[in-house]
Amino acid sequence: MSTRGGTPSPAAAEALDERIARVAWSRLAEPGDTTARDLVVRYGIVDGLAVALRAGSAKTAKYAPRARELDPVRDLEIAARCDARVITPSDEEWPVGLDDLELPPFCLYARGPLDVGVATTGVAVVGSRASTAYGEYLATELAAGLSGAGFGIVSGAAFGIDGAAHRATLAVDGSTIAVLAGGVDRPYPAAHERLLAQIAEVGAVVSEVPPGAAPTRVRFLQRNRLIAAMTAGTLVVEAGLRSGARSTARHALRLGRPLGAVPGPVTSMASAGCHQMVRDAEAVLVTDAEEAAELFGRIGEHLATPKRGPSRPGDDLDSGAQKVRAVLPQYRSATVEKLAGLAGLSAAEVLAGLGQLEAAGLVERRLDGWGRVR
Amino acid sequence: MSTRGGTPSPAAAEALDERIARVAWSRLAEPGDTTARDLVVRYGIVDGLAVALRAGSAKTAKYAPRARELDPVRDLEIAARCDARVITPSDEEWPVGLDDLELPPFCLYARGPLDVGVATTGVAVVGSRASTAYGEYLATELAAGLSGAGFGIVSGAAFGIDGAAHRATLAVDGSTIAVLAGGVDRPYPAAHERLLAQIAEVGAVVSEVPPGAAPTRVRFLQRNRLIAAMTAGTLVVEAGLRSGARSTARHALRLGRPLGAVPGPVTSMASAGCHQMVRDAEAVLVTDAEEAAELFGRIGEHLATPKRGPSRPGDDLDSGAQKVRAVLPQYRSATVEKLAGLAGLSAAEVLAGLGQLEAAGLVERRLDGWGRVR
Repeated sequence: MSTRGGTPSPAAAEALDERIARVAWSRLAEPGDTTARDLVVRYGIVDGLAVALRAGSAKTAKYAPRARELDPVRDLEIAARCDARVITPSDEEWPVGLDDLELPPFCLYARGPLDVGVATTGVAVVGSRASTAYGEYLATELAAGLSGAGFGIVSGAAFGIDGAAHRATLAVDGSTIAVLAGGVDRPYPAAHERLLAQIAEVGAVVSEVPPGAAPTRVRFLQRNRLIAAMTAGTLVVEAGLRSGARSTARHALRLGRPLGAVPGPVTSMASAGCHQMVRDAEAVLVTDAEEAAELFGRIGEHLATPKRGPSRPGDDLDSGAQKVRAVLPQYRSATVEKLAGLAGLSAAEVLAGLGQLEAAGLVERRLDGWGRVR
Repeated sequence: MSTRGGTPSPAAAEALDERIARVAWSRLAEPGDTTARDLVVRYGIVDGLAVALRAGSAKTAKYAPRARELDPVRDLEIAARCDARVITPSDEEWPVGLDDLELPPFCLYARGPLDVGVATTGVAVVGSRASTAYGEYLATELAAGLSGAGFGIVSGAAFGIDGAAHRATLAVDGSTIAVLAGGVDRPYPAAHERLLAQIAEVGAVVSEVPPGAAPTRVRFLQRNRLIAAMTAGTLVVEAGLRSGARSTARHALRLGRPLGAVPGPVTSMASAGCHQMVRDAEAVLVTDAEEAAELFGRIGEHLATPKRGPSRPGDDLDSGAQKVRAVLPQYRSATVEKLAGLAGLSAAEVLAGLGQLEAAGLVERRLDGWGRVR
């Protein structure tokens, strides 16, 4: 983009300005800050930042403490030092679903080789930290199955369902993205340090807050909106009545994304949130990866085979033949007249039924009448 | 009803004629026989019977074998001998829902002291014979809970879910009705002989076929339509993809009765039919007796309390207060300016938030700033 020596073209300079302004915003404003959104809508990213940094206004006074230490160029260096790249809406890999948010992130920080844009056709597999063995088994099955069907798996790297979904995707060499509430250089929970390192090696670890930022409660709640918005839909595997996964589910609903919920024993409180979402017609009940693929794939792309019991000989008999079959003695033979009396049918109806049953290989004619084929 | 001596009045004689004709029909025609229905619709119960018994027509030839042995008066005596009464649409205790059937039964045979009319506001609790311990536990809980809420419990006396529902209702002194596919004097399955005797002692054992009739496959399928039609709605506790309970469920749907289904582990094929009915929006997902009562009770009579997690202090804080709370140090105190920097809020917003938190008893002012109340 640079034209002569080290001096960038005006367009490139402007793009660079916006990039740096976005990094500055991400340090200045908390995720989901409405004042910041208002300023950006009114003045744009770069000029809005200037307004936010100008002292004097009561509305922007809250930025003053952070403004004093603001140094986006240093922040970019810090990001580079921890192998994190900055992704903005002008980058190819920006997950376009984020633009549907009322309060979109200013940028994403990402570690790992995976194109974060795969989230756009991917599925958020989320659920309770307080998961059961049943839930973890299903998160594993569903994430692996969806990966096999070509979906990227996005989750929050938490204990329980999230962790199981990431691990299963890694195990089948699928694409997985962990979206963190704190900086991408701060593995959280700490016990998932190794898991997050593995994800950063082949997938992507993503956050909207700059490296070094702590994962606070507010950032967790805002993080959930990213997971819901960047994916094609959200699948909740286990969620209690107050699980954080339900916050992700609410965001998905608000954004018009399909929402699936996996049922479980009604005796397990870990499934109570899933059951309630189905009862409230917010979520579609999902029992396997095929049904999930149908829900989250492009229309008509992944059609789940309707579940049927095993087919049995005689399934397509008409009702007369069924009646005859029902009254046929188990071991002996019976005459047409005897069968007519037992079934409450005429002799002609019995003969028609026997014809069908014979064609299906279920009865045979014998010297003393008709009998079941054994 | 009789006027002089033993001679009945013309109206009583006519009623008696119809009663005897219905008993004859119940012996002559199989449950769900469309020819019989056509004759009754065209000629009425009594005259239609005469047509059916007349030889010569191809349509009615099927009745000939049984017509030869027809003796409704003897059938009434046999019924009386096994303590069974005959219930027809002119009797008070006729479950009026049966009239909604395309092929209603001609009469019911009933043993036991319970008014069979209680089925009308009752619930059919049905499910798989191949039930799991989970399903039986839930059938027990739901039947007992619904009984406690004043619902009669109707089922089919089969192994598994049906048996658990009857037993639970007996255990809480509720009203239970077993609807059999064979005669009320033929306990089926044989291993439920004792259970059926207990039901006949305090509840009711019911069938549309006369005493002595064998339970055939066709009669089982037709029996399911009675269970669905005589009750206010059907609750399926466990059902595989080809369970007989799904036939009852289909009848309930066709009749416009509410249908509930209890979810279970998706790894259990015993719940697969329930999940499919919920996925297909045929059944409402039900997790406890309260939700079932809401579904099957008269509108507004049994409203389930929406399930919520336990409420916690601070639930009703606004978002500013929540942000302040989230950044308050766990043990130390913090100044307003410090909190403003951490939360990304102005000093005024922090003070407003602290005011709410103080009112909720969550923070306290100290010499060195604000801290959490411990």
